[in-house]
Amino acid sequence: MQVLPEAVSKLLTSLTKLPGIGPKSAQRIAFYLVKAPREEIQLFYQALKEVGEKIKHCSICGFYAEGEVCKICQDASRDRSTICVVEKPQDVIALERTSYRGLYHVLQGSLSPLSGKTPQDLSIEELLQRIQKGNIKEVILATSPSVDGEVTALFIARKLRTFPIKISIVARGLPLGGDLELADELTLAQALEGRKELHVD
Amino acid sequence: MQVLPEAVSKLLTSLTKLPGIGPKSAQRIAFYLVKAPREEIQLFYQALKEVGEKIKHCSICGFYAEGEVCKICQDASRDRSTICVVEKPQDVIALERTSYRGLYHVLQGSLSPLSGKTPQDLSIEELLQRIQKGNIKEVILATSPSVDGEVTALFIARKLRTFPIKISIVARGLPLGGDLELADELTLAQALEGRKELHVD
Repeated sequence: MQVLPEAVSKLLTSLTKLPGIGPKSAQRIAFYLVKAPREEIQLFYQALKEVGEKIKHCSICGFYAEGEVCKICQDASRDRSTICVVEKPQDVIALERTSYRGLYHVLQGSLSPLSGKTPQDLSIEELLQRIQKGNIKEVILATSPSVDGEVTALFIARKLRTFPIKISIVARGLPLGGDLELADELTLAQALEGRKELHVD
Repeated sequence: MQVLPEAVSKLLTSLTKLPGIGPKSAQRIAFYLVKAPREEIQLFYQALKEVGEKIKHCSICGFYAEGEVCKICQDASRDRSTICVVEKPQDVIALERTSYRGLYHVLQGSLSPLSGKTPQDLSIEELLQRIQKGNIKEVILATSPSVDGEVTALFIARKLRTFPIKISIVARGLPLGGDLELADELTLAQALEGRKELHVD
């Protein structure tokens, strides 16, 4: 694409690096941006600039924050006695779509012997310190339903045994809207194991 | 997503406006960018900034240029006696993947009674002026093989009748790599009409 102006070439290079964006999509987006209103581009690059300069991890929970502490940890209206432990910041966004309004703790990954992730690489020590400070009544483990996620949840549950708090793990079972016939055997086994008694009058 | 820092929310808004990017992709890209190396983000927003501030249409052919004149019109090694007329800048990129190394003329659209595009909305007058200056031997009409594209090509061909130049239109026919069985009837009809005699020794 040597005929393109430098700036457009550079933009194409940057766009192609984004996840899920191939050369064709990058080109479509680049040409869209070249024709887009100046104000739209300005808003875009200012947001990018700010993300690059300002965003860091919340010093309490590890979620994204613009200052030292994230919006969730600052929010006094939340239930500050419950901490939901997740692997990554995206998981917080997913849980915020439910009615959960407690606090979070982002581990920044999961234990993984294969990729060399040890307890020291996760913010487990920080979680223990938060609980030691008191006021926490329940820790909900919401790691992924994968081998690494389960191992991480078990590891943390063991570390928390000595604290006088409730420790729970989010239920594994059939996803809603799915078809039982299509569920894999591991999910089915978990759904059977986690069955609940129904009380019918 | 009120829990997200302002900058990330703004970035999400900008990303969702891009063509082909839905809310899920926007979120994946935003979270990728938050974690990306600062230098990568910096290159990205600088390219965006430059595109927003510097890119305009070449004063000769209408392609994208950083200054007054685009790289193609500046290139002395090109065949300056042939002009390929296209509808939009993207078409130039597509043609540059072939061995064509003449000049271009970007109409900035096609005649379209339905969307109210008249000859005055396209850079047809500028094309006539370029030809009047002389030195042009052939004009290749490479508008889209759509109703609007064909009408535009015919309209321009009529305007150019009086000039002592060759006027051609890119061939319509079966796309390579396709299956004749799957070709639509209009394409097949064009392919039949445009058949070439084969000389076998």
